[in-house]
Amino acid sequence: MTKVNLEDLVSLCKRRGFIYQGSELYGGLSGTWDWGPLGLSLKRNLTNLWWQKFVEEPDNMYGIESSILMNAKIWQASGHESTFHDPVIEDVKTKQHYRLDHLLADNKVDPKGMSLEDMANKIKELKIKSPDGNELGNPSRAGQMFKTNVGSVEDESSLTYLRPETAQGMFVNFRNIVDSYYPDIPFGIAQVGRNFRNEISPRDFIFRSREFEIMELEYFIDPSNWEADFDNLRLKMREWFEKTLGLSKENIKEVEIDKSDRAHYSDRTIDFNYKFPGREDELAGLAYRSDFDLSNHQKHSGKNLEYAEKGSNRKFLPHVIEPTFGLERHVLAVLTEYYKEDEINGEKRTYLALPANLAPVKVAVFPLLKNKPELVKYAHDVYGTLKQKVGLAMWDDNGNIGKRYRRQDEIGTPYCVTVDFQSLEDKTVTLRNRDTTEQKRMTVNEVLAELGKS
Amino acid sequence: MTKVNLEDLVSLCKRRGFIYQGSELYGGLSGTWDWGPLGLSLKRNLTNLWWQKFVEEPDNMYGIESSILMNAKIWQASGHESTFHDPVIEDVKTKQHYRLDHLLADNKVDPKGMSLEDMANKIKELKIKSPDGNELGNPSRAGQMFKTNVGSVEDESSLTYLRPETAQGMFVNFRNIVDSYYPDIPFGIAQVGRNFRNEISPRDFIFRSREFEIMELEYFIDPSNWEADFDNLRLKMREWFEKTLGLSKENIKEVEIDKSDRAHYSDRTIDFNYKFPGREDELAGLAYRSDFDLSNHQKHSGKNLEYAEKGSNRKFLPHVIEPTFGLERHVLAVLTEYYKEDEINGEKRTYLALPANLAPVKVAVFPLLKNKPELVKYAHDVYGTLKQKVGLAMWDDNGNIGKRYRRQDEIGTPYCVTVDFQSLEDKTVTLRNRDTTEQKRMTVNEVLAELGKS
Repeated sequence: MTKVNLEDLVSLCKRRGFIYQGSELYGGLSGTWDWGPLGLSLKRNLTNLWWQKFVEEPDNMYGIESSILMNAKIWQASGHESTFHDPVIEDVKTKQHYRLDHLLADNKVDPKGMSLEDMANKIKELKIKSPDGNELGNPSRAGQMFKTNVGSVEDESSLTYLRPETAQGMFVNFRNIVDSYYPDIPFGIAQVGRNFRNEISPRDFIFRSREFEIMELEYFIDPSNWEADFDNLRLKMREWFEKTLGLSKENIKEVEIDKSDRAHYSDRTIDFNYKFPGREDELAGLAYRSDFDLSNHQKHSGKNLEYAEKGSNRKFLPHVIEPTFGLERHVLAVLTEYYKEDEINGEKRTYLALPANLAPVKVAVFPLLKNKPELVKYAHDVYGTLKQKVGLAMWDDNGNIGKRYRRQDEIGTPYCVTVDFQSLEDKTVTLRNRDTTEQKRMTVNEVLAELGKS
Repeated sequence: MTKVNLEDLVSLCKRRGFIYQGSELYGGLSGTWDWGPLGLSLKRNLTNLWWQKFVEEPDNMYGIESSILMNAKIWQASGHESTFHDPVIEDVKTKQHYRLDHLLADNKVDPKGMSLEDMANKIKELKIKSPDGNELGNPSRAGQMFKTNVGSVEDESSLTYLRPETAQGMFVNFRNIVDSYYPDIPFGIAQVGRNFRNEISPRDFIFRSREFEIMELEYFIDPSNWEADFDNLRLKMREWFEKTLGLSKENIKEVEIDKSDRAHYSDRTIDFNYKFPGREDELAGLAYRSDFDLSNHQKHSGKNLEYAEKGSNRKFLPHVIEPTFGLERHVLAVLTEYYKEDEINGEKRTYLALPANLAPVKVAVFPLLKNKPELVKYAHDVYGTLKQKVGLAMWDDNGNIGKRYRRQDEIGTPYCVTVDFQSLEDKTVTLRNRDTTEQKRMTVNEVLAELGKS
């Protein structure tokens, strides 16, 4: 198996236009990334597959998109305003802040369960310096939410936050969905959307950014049998990782979170960790959240959020199971999984072995030579036909065929079609398979059949 | 033709779960809206059609997604930091701010071309009061961009803005696209994304919000023949409105913007106005922007943004033509266009005559009765088949068939399929057409053929 390091992925992503540093032209803005055409195509494919599997296929899922700007009371009710902080410590010289827990972890100390003071003491005890080699000062807590003011007056009354998660947007629309759609329990509300966290130290490429996307479900259940619902969702998540995305079992680890590390309201939480380059870390999570969220919002909003069971007099606050998927982390996992190196005729080759459902380009079409008008014309007809049927097709007439194959290999195009002089005579083309590098002559209809199968 | 007013649309959208007020549970956050399942489905259909037509179908378009948070220098270079302000005036009693230009327009004064002082003088002259009936004070300019701070220090050095437009994200990635893809000129960069403007008075439902989406192209051209490129894009936009969306010609007006009202760098700008309920206003725009944007960024970033023409020694800054489409305004236009009322058997009916490519639900399936297990089972099989082929299908077994038709009519479902006792015998079902209300018996395969046609 090819082992990939993060630098190789970053470099491939920039060079081939998958992902660029945000605001790069002006020296960047730390923790932001811009999606180039191929990266966006991959991300769109992945998001659409998720939406299909988790929202459109089931009959009890309601997809929404809530605002990024929400009433600040929501973040008071959810507890974010008072508790969504990072433990930080200041470099006394540069005044830069660093994450206390990260500094400890980098020095092989597990910060789990430690208080701010515990962490600061450990730093002193171990004489840990800042990354710039300076003394570290007093610890503090840095709010993770970006602040802004809405309206014409800039004061406390107009203060709100950029949402740090999509979940609250679904909880505060629970009543709306029940009123518009009268769903039976269990049902879910789903959302894919951007979130913002003022990370002290964004890092590891798109793994931890200040602006990122989450794909998420809030699944509302009758609490009497939550274990079964939890396990069904767990299996469905495994299906998604292994069948839909084709991630290998050995790269995904289910980690049961200990009671001491779980939120106090959660009776069970699982992290799905993936073997990213250099580290195993969270790709997705599954948490049983009891009625913590709805009861908080019921209390703070003063509105009744109980669900009236159909055909009975029973009213109750549904409990929630929440599967969460980090979208950028999924793209990173997919790139990691399918990044391959091999040798062809003694030459090193780098390619992305992406399955066709994810590949940003499904098929590329080449005229053998670019200076033969009839060849180019026929190749263009073939290209038009394939593009119309397949959608994501690419034209390339630049350089020798071998180089064009390599370029497509590097961006994960499963098939290349070459039009040559024989094509003009017998209307066959050459179909070349990325993974086997095998080439076969066939008609365009046979190419379409092959692509349909893949 | 049915004339619809805004209140009818707002009410339909809330009741049926198209669009909800943002943060409604907590009394709202003015100028924000949440998309419910049916509205989101309609919006996704519309966005995907746009992406297909403007990004995927042409061979010279590069779709990207840039960050919402960008380096503040970008907004200095673009001129937004110094000029993106609204003229406002204060209610001396409530301290509320109001848009000066809107107050004048409401009082039949055209504020175009007036300075802040001119407007304030006109207010005094006409003795215009605030909407609450109070005196108005001194005029000022209110910045339209939301501010926030990125990083651990809250001061000028960490200040940036939520992007008020998608365009700059494309200009600052111009060099990246050229370096990764070596495109021939003309080529375009496209983006669909969320934007934020701290509007003093958000209004008219989703027409003017504080958080909204834009679908946009920046088309980079050789300036020598810009008129032809401009006209091609103009025609393509008309195709989009009339053919793809089916908006009627008489509802869209092309307005050539006078030199005095155009940006100083633009030699031609067109607004595409739509007849929204109660007002004709901007739906989309097309602007020739010369090399204003790239030359600004070249100057401020200190990086060379010239394009090196292939096969020659010529280097030049491409000029830009920019087609912009307001996404929420498109949804509002579509709802306005297709909102219909008629009478069936003496009963008033409200329906959305949405074309199938836009309809949030393509087909609904009903068992005639819900308490006959074999009927329900067969209907469910039919539902499964249709859903698998058509995607957006809905099941409804609630209430009499007439009511179910009305419910589907109201959300714009083009076809309903009813399974009755005869279905169990001869495997035929009833297909009912929303617009004609005609019902025909046919097999499920014939239903699929009919849906494929629509």
